[in-house]
Amino acid sequence: MKTVPVGVSARHIHLSPAHIDILFGQGYELTTFKDLSQPGQFAAQETVAIVGPKCKIEKVRILGPARPSTQIEVSRTDAFSLGINPPVRESGQIEHSPGLRVIGPKGEVDLEHGVIVAARHIHFHTSDAEKWGIQDKQLLRVKVNGERPLIFENVIARVSDHYALDMHIDTDEGNAAGVKTGDLAELID
Amino acid sequence: MKTVPVGVSARHIHLSPAHIDILFGQGYELTTFKDLSQPGQFAAQETVAIVGPKCKIEKVRILGPARPSTQIEVSRTDAFSLGINPPVRESGQIEHSPGLRVIGPKGEVDLEHGVIVAARHIHFHTSDAEKWGIQDKQLLRVKVNGERPLIFENVIARVSDHYALDMHIDTDEGNAAGVKTGDLAELID
Repeated sequence: MKTVPVGVSARHIHLSPAHIDILFGQGYELTTFKDLSQPGQFAAQETVAIVGPKCKIEKVRILGPARPSTQIEVSRTDAFSLGINPPVRESGQIEHSPGLRVIGPKGEVDLEHGVIVAARHIHFHTSDAEKWGIQDKQLLRVKVNGERPLIFENVIARVSDHYALDMHIDTDEGNAAGVKTGDLAELID
Repeated sequence: MKTVPVGVSARHIHLSPAHIDILFGQGYELTTFKDLSQPGQFAAQETVAIVGPKCKIEKVRILGPARPSTQIEVSRTDAFSLGINPPVRESGQIEHSPGLRVIGPKGEVDLEHGVIVAARHIHFHTSDAEKWGIQDKQLLRVKVNGERPLIFENVIARVSDHYALDMHIDTDEGNAAGVKTGDLAELID
């Protein structure tokens, strides 16, 4: 059986260095709250508020390290609350996505774009992918035997020497399946 | 192909006659906002607020007519916000479920129990069930080809002459699948 640990991603933000400067002050360095499953990635102690046409959400966790472009990942539920309609996308594909206002302790940024609902995906270390015959970008089916069992289709494989095995779904998907971070899922083809 | 229309249920409340009296005044009659897919059921114009340990949610829609026991159906996302841990249950099975405070324009009720996360289910008219060979209480698999395709397992069949064909899922499940009310799903066995 090909089992994969599940990571349920709550809403979060990745910030560019320029936006960290504006939101937290020139030259500010994010501090680690906890390490994430992917090597080198961390949840920062710092949070920001995000503001859409319909509501403001406080304490949105920043994930580090800084990235070239600022990106906000929300659930569809969050998106309805905020009053925006972001596309379901792979991380980094933020063209023509909506923006939001981001508020930090030292400043604010009005993003023109950057908000997405993350497409469900699995990070494979190259060795895992080779062992199971999986190619980068392949679409997979994954069964989750939680309290509300279901099969996710079109789960995108992402293969790299820099990745650790982990399936990332958002809170809507985690809640719909009744699973939490650390539960196991099963690749079924 | 066995196709079934999808109904995505937002959080809502069913009230007992006694609780309608307390919340809206003695002898108050709910008024219809719109008819629902199941014959005789309606969304009322009236709403209430519900209050949990962590937050208050305003404008929770009442579904009519009145029922013997008050029951609140929320998504898991709502439950986390409210600060309660309701079980996933079929409608009517509210034993040992948590309660909430319910606030209406004329009074308040502190429920000792009655809050559930609704178990996904399909209402079949007896004629639909006979045509497709489906028994009441049977667990079904249903494929949803939305923006985020998935297969729901353990979908409970509910068969009655009083029902119209409709699959009921909650907002977490609808958002996880990228479907909305009126989209079609496919029974796959």
